[in-house]
Amino acid sequence: MRKVSFFLFFISQACTLYGQDNTKNLIQYVDPMIGTARMGHTYPGATAPFGMVQLSPDTDTIPYAVNGKYTGDVYKYCAGYQHEDKTIVGFSHTHFSGTGHSDLGDFLVMPTVGELQLNPGTAKNSETGYRSVFSHENETAEAGYYKVKLDDYNITAELTATTRVGMHRYTFPESDKAHIILDLMYGIYNYDEKTTWAFLRVENDTLVTGYRSTNGWARTRTIYFAMAFSKPFKSYGLKTYEKHPYRGFWGRFDQENNFPEAANEKIRAHFDFDTSEGEQIKIRFALSPVSTEGAIKNMQAEVPGWDFDQVKSQTQATWNKELNRITADAGSDGEMTNFYTAMYHAFLGPTVYMDVDGQYKGLDQNIHQADGFINYTSFSLWDTYRALHPLFNILQPARNQDMIRSMMAHYDQSVHKMLPIWSHHANENWCMIGYHSVPVIADAVIKGNADFDVERALEACIQTANTRYFDGIGAYIDKGYVPEDISSASVSKTLEYAYDDWCIAQMAGRLGKEDIYNEFIKRSASYKNVYDARSGFMRPKLSNGEWKKEFDPLDTHGQGFIEGNSWNYSLYVPHDPATMIDMMGGKQKFTQHLDSLFSMELPDKYFEHTEDISRDGIIGNYVHGNEPSHHVVYLYNWTDAPWKAQDKIRMILKTMYKPAANGLGGNDDFGQMSAWYLFSALGFYPVAPGSNEYMLGSPVVKSATIHLKNGKTFTVEAKDQSDKNVFVKRVTLNGKLLDRRYVTHEDIVNGGTLTFYMSSRPDKR
Amino acid sequence: MRKVSFFLFFISQACTLYGQDNTKNLIQYVDPMIGTARMGHTYPGATAPFGMVQLSPDTDTIPYAVNGKYTGDVYKYCAGYQHEDKTIVGFSHTHFSGTGHSDLGDFLVMPTVGELQLNPGTAKNSETGYRSVFSHENETAEAGYYKVKLDDYNITAELTATTRVGMHRYTFPESDKAHIILDLMYGIYNYDEKTTWAFLRVENDTLVTGYRSTNGWARTRTIYFAMAFSKPFKSYGLKTYEKHPYRGFWGRFDQENNFPEAANEKIRAHFDFDTSEGEQIKIRFALSPVSTEGAIKNMQAEVPGWDFDQVKSQTQATWNKELNRITADAGSDGEMTNFYTAMYHAFLGPTVYMDVDGQYKGLDQNIHQADGFINYTSFSLWDTYRALHPLFNILQPARNQDMIRSMMAHYDQSVHKMLPIWSHHANENWCMIGYHSVPVIADAVIKGNADFDVERALEACIQTANTRYFDGIGAYIDKGYVPEDISSASVSKTLEYAYDDWCIAQMAGRLGKEDIYNEFIKRSASYKNVYDARSGFMRPKLSNGEWKKEFDPLDTHGQGFIEGNSWNYSLYVPHDPATMIDMMGGKQKFTQHLDSLFSMELPDKYFEHTEDISRDGIIGNYVHGNEPSHHVVYLYNWTDAPWKAQDKIRMILKTMYKPAANGLGGNDDFGQMSAWYLFSALGFYPVAPGSNEYMLGSPVVKSATIHLKNGKTFTVEAKDQSDKNVFVKRVTLNGKLLDRRYVTHEDIVNGGTLTFYMSSRPDKR
Repeated sequence: MRKVSFFLFFISQACTLYGQDNTKNLIQYVDPMIGTARMGHTYPGATAPFGMVQLSPDTDTIPYAVNGKYTGDVYKYCAGYQHEDKTIVGFSHTHFSGTGHSDLGDFLVMPTVGELQLNPGTAKNSETGYRSVFSHENETAEAGYYKVKLDDYNITAELTATTRVGMHRYTFPESDKAHIILDLMYGIYNYDEKTTWAFLRVENDTLVTGYRSTNGWARTRTIYFAMAFSKPFKSYGLKTYEKHPYRGFWGRFDQENNFPEAANEKIRAHFDFDTSEGEQIKIRFALSPVSTEGAIKNMQAEVPGWDFDQVKSQTQATWNKELNRITADAGSDGEMTNFYTAMYHAFLGPTVYMDVDGQYKGLDQNIHQADGFINYTSFSLWDTYRALHPLFNILQPARNQDMIRSMMAHYDQSVHKMLPIWSHHANENWCMIGYHSVPVIADAVIKGNADFDVERALEACIQTANTRYFDGIGAYIDKGYVPEDISSASVSKTLEYAYDDWCIAQMAGRLGKEDIYNEFIKRSASYKNVYDARSGFMRPKLSNGEWKKEFDPLDTHGQGFIEGNSWNYSLYVPHDPATMIDMMGGKQKFTQHLDSLFSMELPDKYFEHTEDISRDGIIGNYVHGNEPSHHVVYLYNWTDAPWKAQDKIRMILKTMYKPAANGLGGNDDFGQMSAWYLFSALGFYPVAPGSNEYMLGSPVVKSATIHLKNGKTFTVEAKDQSDKNVFVKRVTLNGKLLDRRYVTHEDIVNGGTLTFYMSSRPDKR
Repeated sequence: MRKVSFFLFFISQACTLYGQDNTKNLIQYVDPMIGTARMGHTYPGATAPFGMVQLSPDTDTIPYAVNGKYTGDVYKYCAGYQHEDKTIVGFSHTHFSGTGHSDLGDFLVMPTVGELQLNPGTAKNSETGYRSVFSHENETAEAGYYKVKLDDYNITAELTATTRVGMHRYTFPESDKAHIILDLMYGIYNYDEKTTWAFLRVENDTLVTGYRSTNGWARTRTIYFAMAFSKPFKSYGLKTYEKHPYRGFWGRFDQENNFPEAANEKIRAHFDFDTSEGEQIKIRFALSPVSTEGAIKNMQAEVPGWDFDQVKSQTQATWNKELNRITADAGSDGEMTNFYTAMYHAFLGPTVYMDVDGQYKGLDQNIHQADGFINYTSFSLWDTYRALHPLFNILQPARNQDMIRSMMAHYDQSVHKMLPIWSHHANENWCMIGYHSVPVIADAVIKGNADFDVERALEACIQTANTRYFDGIGAYIDKGYVPEDISSASVSKTLEYAYDDWCIAQMAGRLGKEDIYNEFIKRSASYKNVYDARSGFMRPKLSNGEWKKEFDPLDTHGQGFIEGNSWNYSLYVPHDPATMIDMMGGKQKFTQHLDSLFSMELPDKYFEHTEDISRDGIIGNYVHGNEPSHHVVYLYNWTDAPWKAQDKIRMILKTMYKPAANGLGGNDDFGQMSAWYLFSALGFYPVAPGSNEYMLGSPVVKSATIHLKNGKTFTVEAKDQSDKNVFVKRVTLNGKLLDRRYVTHEDIVNGGTLTFYMSSRPDKR
């Protein structure tokens, strides 16, 4: 084990050091604050690319429900931090980035001085607890580094992180009552109610270990830690809050003061110090999905010493190296910030989920050894199959293959024999719809980025697509559509299954499996079965074949769709727009449909109770703040008015992505919103992952060069680029006029130059 | 891994088959029902020697507390079974034998027919739940085999077990509503409230896996299982009883019927079958302390097939081999039953606690590999250091060394750096007093049965003895006694610490460590500091050096003692009786003290609220039903009237050990009561483990031959043995007159013959 750890540690060093030599300083353009206000759901804290540790401030304590009633605030606090808040409760080590559902918030640490307070207190009165007031003026957020002054205590807190280890540096005032609090009760998603069991051991006066098991969004989850202090604590205490007498114990010890072990649902610990003015106390906090022993291994491998600045610069060098996969000139600083922050957000997940020795916890809750791959978790697939994983096939091909290997491990461990739907930390949480591991795998296969067992992967896709008891699939297979009376959101499900099935057909075709191809290409036409020619919309159908009576294509509630209305969702046939357009009355009528979508008015009542849709993310009736429409603007490419896409794309880029805390029009959804930005800013977008085509749009960059893994480069140029010149006159590829409205994956990976000639006037020919 | 497993399986086969060839049929004398009534706390079910699985019927559902008030019934149901009960709730896989405190009762299985009932119902009305009426006429209990007819269902249940696997065979009537219930809520010690989390997976229609975590007597415990059915179930259901919504799940599945996974504090499952008249359904149920993967490995290694009868005969052959370590003629069948059932009970624990591949869960909750030893758990040391481990040094020397290696592993994993006090299943439960790992280790060292790192073992003993914050040790070291105002039961603690310290001195002496010897031989005299010459009794002293005022040497409550009164406990100086006797006024006065102890009257009020002492276990004021006095009768050997011990020993053997369900005068305490019987029946007893001397008494056997590991034999003969001839005229060793009142461990392991010449009249010379 030690050998492995040391080897990995050496590699990570090597890479980052190497990285520093020949890369541009691009982290200067990363602003982790973008998306931390309103509905962006990003976190400002410190993390390494795809890191297991996301060490970030949490700004309130939100219960899942109050008096049994769900509080919408849980949604608002998906990432633990809300920019408008005035207090910081503490710094916890795990956070989702941009998700529309929440969990994590493990192991909250908070430094204080003065009389010990073990409860967090309230946002209104920070002095009632250990939390502190802070202000954004005293706050700095960079890739891999976060700093804030805690006003209640005059303590400066600094955070950085490697893949598996968070590092804290607290600068204290002089005090004989300095404390570092470790709150094992705190959690995101259900403030202090989700821990089912916790265990804590004070190994010695500088090392603490433990774990907690949670029933949060992940149903059955255990995470382990090791916490090392740079200075021995003079005393400590472990308080438990539920009645679980240590039987047989008979009060033989004082369990709350300097007693080295506790076990309970609810545990808070405090470690006490004398500090001189400006004294710094550092903490190395390692996580493991496997054991406290694993956490200690991770710590020794990744952060063997106490040099905070070295860890910070090493992690920032790693970030810089990752960001240098595209060297772009986006024009203004603001756009450069949008561009590289989008890239930063795109590289936050899925996250590494294994110890340095390759051990991880599987879906079966047993310990597994990752054999020749890095195991990843947190697959927000309903979002990320659209643009993020396609982006990885260009910028992170090796990681994307390991992500697929991780999905296959999930499949092997699944009692349902299903690929992930929305999985994290050895759990399937079944969030949203479809079986969108399939397009991720198909896209990699079709784009030739598939150095894994493709036959088995196809098998897994078919198994998953044939799980009759899951979410209406049985009826879908039998009837060609999901009946609304059998499974709600039936139209959304039918449309997405149809697309996923097309992906299976593409893979089968690639492998020359004609029967499978035929079976699934037939299933991929199922979208036709939910099209109601009379209304001109996709519409929910019942088991008896009749349309559901009440139907309002503007409404997102109870209309047979999920997180979208029929106006938007009716356009969800990414794999066969041409046929869809014919079906919907031909190009002209369809163009009008698109035009109205962007121009019409959508009253609040139609979406006000839909968490993932807010006014911020809406243009007319087009919803960019949520995923179902992310391909929609590019559908103009199938009409006679492709130019109509171009100004709209630029408008979306301008209005939905701003270099500000409230700059995101909706949840970043683990990088999907950002991936949409990156593709569109480069001038092309993967409308149908699983095909090798990227539809052309209107680039925002002046120029950008993608540095490919194969050593080649692919450069995008926009001639006469400006805010006014949003229309594309013509496009050349390697100097030759491009007579199609897309580029292929081959065009990109073969290297070359794609040149857009921009103009202020649309080319209506 | 598979290699190891297969190897171990092969060995166990080999041993048992070999065993069958050249051994007497002694299991015929084992009656597991002995001690199942009243306070014996034994269980009648099926287990292998020192087995991890104790598969046994449970006869009621007892909560720890009702309306917050502790119910004494928990004590009564330590082993899950009470002979007087009329119903069986089901068959669970883990049970303590004879303990005075309870836990376990994992994974209760119950077969039923008719309408499904998932609640156990009540003892009065079995038809209100899945439990069933039974009668002892239809019940058979043998070593390694249990059988009972479940009257409510006309189902015959049979149980057998290997070390890690329980096997069930249920003979059903014809039914299209046959069920096998798996209740993960049921538990001993706190009926349905102690599980903190449970996880269940239906891997396929014949295999179920899962685990549960409990907060019972063991504070933080998780145990895993794999359950295989000989016949595929036609349907199944998993019900959960606490609100833990499967978030994101949104009712997409029917979670209660044929859905393959559940997680909750409270889970019950049912598996449904059609059965023909007399059809047998078998279950292999494997346990693991590590993982469900480990449980499956254990199953494959130990019970790869479905031949119930083969498993039964194999386990019974193993038992026979173990029992043949002594071939005795105890005279009557009744006495033979007492003798071999005592041996059976002595070989039930400590229990194996590792998978076939050597993995086990440690005190730090991490997974460890047992390197070259079998890891054992469930150390009821306050009881078993007295006679059980000394017995193992003769009959089970290899196991006893592995038990010590297991204690050392516990020490290495202990955050307190302490040897076990009362530990089970990766937990320390701190029950009772003293640090009695020490005498177990010292006895092995002094008797030369110490093929382990003796230097480290001594170190561990000293560390443990110097844990100042544990149970008054700090004050004990400083003042030479535990002050009652600092730690209650202070006299008991002082006396037992003193003895344990003497054991450390013996070890240090053996290793030539003079300083340590001197330090601890000094500590071993601490008993003198709590002797009150005025009252003639050991008596609680306060920090200020004054005796505690109110004092009643007859009372067991709040007098400075635990589970014993001063009359009994004042005699607790096993390591230096001679000095104690002088201190107490000389031989004559002391003899009178002993005489009165056995003859005086002890009114109920003095012990009626002491769980471990009942009228069954009392002779006069001498308490045999609990441990503190187990050495007392042998103290006559230090007086001028050793013969007074002899008839009393025979009386104790006769009154406290009977071949009946209610045959035990008190808790068997994991074999300590039985070990006392075995030594005394053979005519000698280890008054002070840590010395190599066994005090002579009055044997009950006609003859008995101990087959030693070194190949030699040691035979005890009692000439003119009879119920009347309870006095010893003279004793010869290998034909030579024995001019001492003890035999040494060397006398035994060198082999030979010890001959007692019995008489009806005491030899008062």
